[in-house]
Formats: sequence, C-alpha cells, structure tokens
Amino acid sequence: MKWLVALFCTGLSVLATAAELPLVQKQQFDLAEFSTQSGVQLKQVKVGWEAYGTLNADKSNAILITHYFSGSSHAAGKYRSTDAAPGYWDAIIGPGKAIDTNKFYVLSVDSLANINAFSPDVITTGPASINPATGKPYGLSFPVVTITDFVEVQRALLDTLGIKKLHAVIGPSMGSFQAIEWTVRYPERVQRLVPVIGTAYIDAYSAVRLERWAQPIKQDPSWQQGQYPLNQQPAGLALALAYVIQDALHPQGFNQSYPAPAQDSAIHHSIKAELPAFSQLLSAAKGRSAQMDANSLLYLVRASQLWRAGMGDNWPQALAQVKAKTLWLPATGDLLLTPAMAQASQQQLPSSRYQEIAGKKGVSNGHYDGLSNIQSVSQLLSDFLSH
Amino acid sequence: MKWLVALFCTGLSVLATAAELPLVQKQQFDLAEFSTQSGVQLKQVKVGWEAYGTLNADKSNAILITHYFSGSSHAAGKYRSTDAAPGYWDAIIGPGKAIDTNKFYVLSVDSLANINAFSPDVITTGPASINPATGKPYGLSFPVVTITDFVEVQRALLDTLGIKKLHAVIGPSMGSFQAIEWTVRYPERVQRLVPVIGTAYIDAYSAVRLERWAQPIKQDPSWQQGQYPLNQQPAGLALALAYVIQDALHPQGFNQSYPAPAQDSAIHHSIKAELPAFSQLLSAAKGRSAQMDANSLLYLVRASQLWRAGMGDNWPQALAQVKAKTLWLPATGDLLLTPAMAQASQQQLPSSRYQEIAGKKGVSNGHYDGLSNIQSVSQLLSDFLSH
Repeated sequence: MKWLVALFCTGLSVLATAAELPLVQKQQFDLAEFSTQSGVQLKQVKVGWEAYGTLNADKSNAILITHYFSGSSHAAGKYRSTDAAPGYWDAIIGPGKAIDTNKFYVLSVDSLANINAFSPDVITTGPASINPATGKPYGLSFPVVTITDFVEVQRALLDTLGIKKLHAVIGPSMGSFQAIEWTVRYPERVQRLVPVIGTAYIDAYSAVRLERWAQPIKQDPSWQQGQYPLNQQPAGLALALAYVIQDALHPQGFNQSYPAPAQDSAIHHSIKAELPAFSQLLSAAKGRSAQMDANSLLYLVRASQLWRAGMGDNWPQALAQVKAKTLWLPATGDLLLTPAMAQASQQQLPSSRYQEIAGKKGVSNGHYDGLSNIQSVSQLLSDFLSH
Repeated sequence: MKWLVALFCTGLSVLATAAELPLVQKQQFDLAEFSTQSGVQLKQVKVGWEAYGTLNADKSNAILITHYFSGSSHAAGKYRSTDAAPGYWDAIIGPGKAIDTNKFYVLSVDSLANINAFSPDVITTGPASINPATGKPYGLSFPVVTITDFVEVQRALLDTLGIKKLHAVIGPSMGSFQAIEWTVRYPERVQRLVPVIGTAYIDAYSAVRLERWAQPIKQDPSWQQGQYPLNQQPAGLALALAYVIQDALHPQGFNQSYPAPAQDSAIHHSIKAELPAFSQLLSAAKGRSAQMDANSLLYLVRASQLWRAGMGDNWPQALAQVKAKTLWLPATGDLLLTPAMAQASQQQLPSSRYQEIAGKKGVSNGHYDGLSNIQSVSQLLSDFLSH
C-alpha cells in the first residue's frame, strides 16, 4: 500500500506507460506582414514551430506550449537521435506522459527576437535578422516587441492551421506571460491555462532586476550601441547570461555546484584574482551563449519588463476577463518570479487552483525547478487536463 | 492596560527618557605599522573613530559598534547641528536609548578601504590613500584586506585606550562579520555579541552576488584597471551602488519608491529608452556615491566575499570558540544576508538567542530593516545589555 501511494505521489503512475516521441521536425511559419503592438509594420516575418502528437478531425485537441526567456519551441523530443538531450519539458510531454501526445496535439512556436538567434534549430525574426528594406541586420532599429506580439504570431499560426480553440495553454516563466495573455485577449479560445513559475505582472523591483541582465551588454564597448558584427558578439553577453543562470537558481542548488571561497587561495592575495565560483559560472554561461545574440537578449528583457496582463494600466481588471480553468504552478524556492507574485496573480482569479513545485530531495533549485522538477506535478497536470 | 502593553512592545518605555547626544567629534587613530592577514606590512595606517558616552574608571563599560559595507564609524549623533541626519543607529544609541550612553562608552572605527574615502568625516587607509613608499595612490597595489584586519585595527585602538574587555560588540551586516570575528579571535575580551542582519559565513551564492557589485566597475573602461585619476571616478561606481541599494531592499519597500512600467511610455516605443525605475535608482545612487571611491568598493566586496568566522576552512568549528552571550537579529524580509544564513550560524551557538526584525507597518524593507527599523528591537536589546 505504501508503495502504491509512493508511486502515485511521485507521478510514476502517469509515466508507467510513457514512451519517447518520434524524432521532431522544426517547421517554418511565414507572415508576409506583421503589425507590432507598438505600431510598426514588419515584412517577411518568419518563426520556427514544432508539434508532437496528431491533430484530431475537429481540431479540438490542441495544447499550446509557450517558451521561457532563454528557450525555444523545443519543448519535447529530439531532432536527431544523437541529440544530447530532448526538449526542456520532455518529462511531461510525450506518449503516456502528463501532457499525453496520444491524446493531444501539442505545439510550440519560437518567439520573435529569440535569444538563440544563431541556433540551427531556431527560426526567429528579430534584431539579428536582415531587414528586407535595407538588406542589413535590423539591430536596434527592430521595434520593441511585447508578449502580445508573441501571442499574435502564435494566433496567426493557429488560424492558418484552422485551430479555433485550445484545450490548454501552458508555459513556464516568460511562457506563463504568453499563456496568460492568450486567455486575456482570447477568453473564448482557451479552455485551460497553466502558468508555471509565472506571474500576471512585472513590478518595478523585477523590472530593475531584468535591467541588470541588460547592463553587462550595454556597458560593453564592443557592443557598439547595438552595431557589433553579428559574428563578434560582445563579451557582455556571457556575463548577462551568467546573471540569468544565477537568478534562476536558489542558494541551495547554486551552492551544490559552485565552491565557496576557501583559505590560501589566490583571491586572498590579489584583488585582481577572480572568485573561483564566478569563473566557473562565467565559463558555463560562455558555453551556453555560443548561439545567442546580445541585442536579442535586450529585446527579451524589454518584453519581460513591459509584461502585465492585458498590457494596459490595470492588470487585475484584465485578468478578470479570463474564462479558462486555471492552475498556477509556482516553485516554492523561486527568487525570480516568486510565489508571492503568483499568489497576487491568483487572487484575481479566485476560482483558480494553486500548487507549488518543490525542489528535488529537499534541495531547491529556485525558478529552475519549474523546468528541472516539473515531473513532480505530472499527476496533478494530467488530472487537470482530463477534466 | 492595553496602552501599557503597546508602550512596552514598541520599545517606547526605553525611549521615554531618551535625549540627543552632544555634538560628535571624529578622531584619528594612527598606526606606524600594520601587518595585514595576507602578510603585507603597511606603514602609516590611519583610521577615523568616534565615541559617545564616558569610559568609566575601570574601563569596563565599552561597547564597540562595527559598521556596514557602505557605512562609516558615524553610528549616532551629529557632527554639526546643521547635519541633515544623525548617525545610522541614532535611534538606539544615545542617552536613555537602548544602547544607553548614560551607562556605556560606545565607540566605532572607520574600516580600512572605507568606501567613503572622500568624505570629510571619514578617515581611512585604502587604495585611494597615498602609498608613503611611492608618494602615489596605492590603487590596486594595496593589499587584500579582510574582516580580521578590520578587527585588528580596532583591537590596536582599544589596546591604546586601555580597554581590555568589551561589554558588547554590535554591528549590522558587514559589521556583524567584524563583531563575530572579535568573539572568535578574542573570546575572553567580549562579553556580549549582537550580529544584526548578519551571518557567520558567505556562501558561493552570496559571494557571486557580491561580485555582481564589482562587475559594473571592472567593466567600465574609465576604471582603467584601477588606475583612474581619483577625482574622475568611473561611472560604473554609481551603477554598482545602485545594485547595492536594490539588493538591500525587499520588493515591498522597493515598489513603494519606484514606478512599475506603465502604458504609452517611451520604453514601449524605443529599445534605447531607459526604464524609469532604473533611471531613478541610478540617480539616487549617483547622489550617494559622490564621496565614494570605486577601487575601495572592490576591496570591501573582496573582504565580504572572503568572510567566514575564523577565516579558515571550518567556520562552524571557529564559532564554537565564542564565549560571548549572543543575540542574533536578522531581518525577516532580508534577501541579501537571509534569515536562513543567520539560522545556520545560530545553530553553531545553541545557547544564543534569535529574534527577527520585522518591516515597519507590514512593509518589508529587507536587509535595510536592520538599519531603518532597528528601534523595533530597542527593548530586547536594552534588556540583553543589562543582564
């Protein structure tokens, strides 16, 4: 009996019949014209997208996954059998998994100004794209884009596919912003909403913290006010990403990976010596930023800073439009988009459910638990999608 | 009766008879030679210090106050009747106050490498000082200094004054590091220890966050690897201080002072437009950094990064040396030196007391509550010092 309870609680009952997805194909969606929220007309917009499972005859089984800040539409599966890892939420998306691709048609779309602009598996239109009017990269002449713009690109794709209603929209972090904005703008088109490690608003404190991700790029002379050659990314990009990595973690998880200062090391003897934990973090960030674009990071910072449901001056009122059944899944140790922000958001939707994601084995990885420990809410998510 | 309880709980019973200190005088303490923990021999070291109250005949009533990162020895009173504000802990230091200068001789010492190097009210020896061997500013040739070094300078002053035993050592934040190190190095000389918003160790996570205060200076080309003209401080100094200010606050307090992004503002229309909250924060930081030195900030970051009780590789063991009666006073909403760190420290001193400082009127100001709401623990502190 104890064993059965354990099985149930860890969500293994869902995974018992789980299998891997077939190889995934990135597809391209083209829009001849797109008007941004800020009123700029873009031409020849393209974004990547991918899907898992099969769209049913009446097109009623679609679930949209919206991605996080440094992510892409690669939510599950592998492109190539040799890929080192599958998509970020592979633990919950697939045949027999919490978001069951035997039942649902699951799709996801690369954002505009995606940070992974130089990844062969990402298709995006942003500051690193060629402006068809000039034949040169947009750079900072690319318009400010918002969470609403990301949603409108997704809507255009769904319209093209003939999908009128979504069974659910589910997204982590910046993906939660898009998921919420879907339900605010199109309350009749979304049946279920799951903001994971999310919030319905960014406050001044969080907007300034986001600005601190932009500053290492803006401070870097080789950024050249955004006009650097695209194949010579400013070093500030890796520094920015190092800050993103740290801010997404909790001290418990961080301290397991990085060393505390110790006796008789160089940092005791020279002010110029670099803190070993900082060197390691920066090195990890350099590796992860190899296919990223510095300007694109600035655009995603701005899109995140500007986020509040409905994009007006009254996000609680905007949230009152939501008709979707809603499940909030913040992470207990999240220091970036805190449970307090999720709770303040949830209070505007009194009938919505709220469940925190804990760390694995009592160790919090903060915001990152929304990705790395998402399987801990598999059963809850599976039940939520079934009713 | 209700009224009496309220009086007691808010600590007003202590303050009922409180009066202001007479005008305070900064004094200078000179050391012909000083050996740093890192083994460098410095010559002609000088620091400022100040005292409130009167040293009794047997010199048994001294209380040492150790200051925080961006602070100085100006803990209480005013230098001039026209001063805009008194010292940072004036609410608890003075005649009839929690640290009662009618009973105690309270003294405080400017740190080495004090960040306020150009304040007329601060005397310090650090990278902005003239190296007597060269006649030029030390710059980065100044040795790494540690919390232990700060303590040793203070000890030399106390020896000169003939103070063999301290009734108490009390300090906030970086001041708590010094207070703890006093009790570890000189267990027989300290009777009471009060670490306020403090910790007995800095972990990797906190050390990297501190590094993020140093980076805006190190990234600034006008820093010139530390060799900038002292009257042309790099702009990165103000940016660094902006980060210090934010990290010392809780979102609740921060959001009361800075505006959230709103509709139809410039930041929606131009990626180059600056977030209003960030502009305001930077402007405040610029004002506050007018008498500060960029290199000195780097030295205080390093001293803080290296902090762990006893400065070896086993701070819990070092803490076991402490004989002082101890009272930990972390701030509930502190996101910089968290209550979790104070608790981990306190666990190594099982007989020590622990009481959190709350925010004023239900609004947390985070780490800063250890300064701005210190009067909320007046009664507790007064009682602790009396027994």
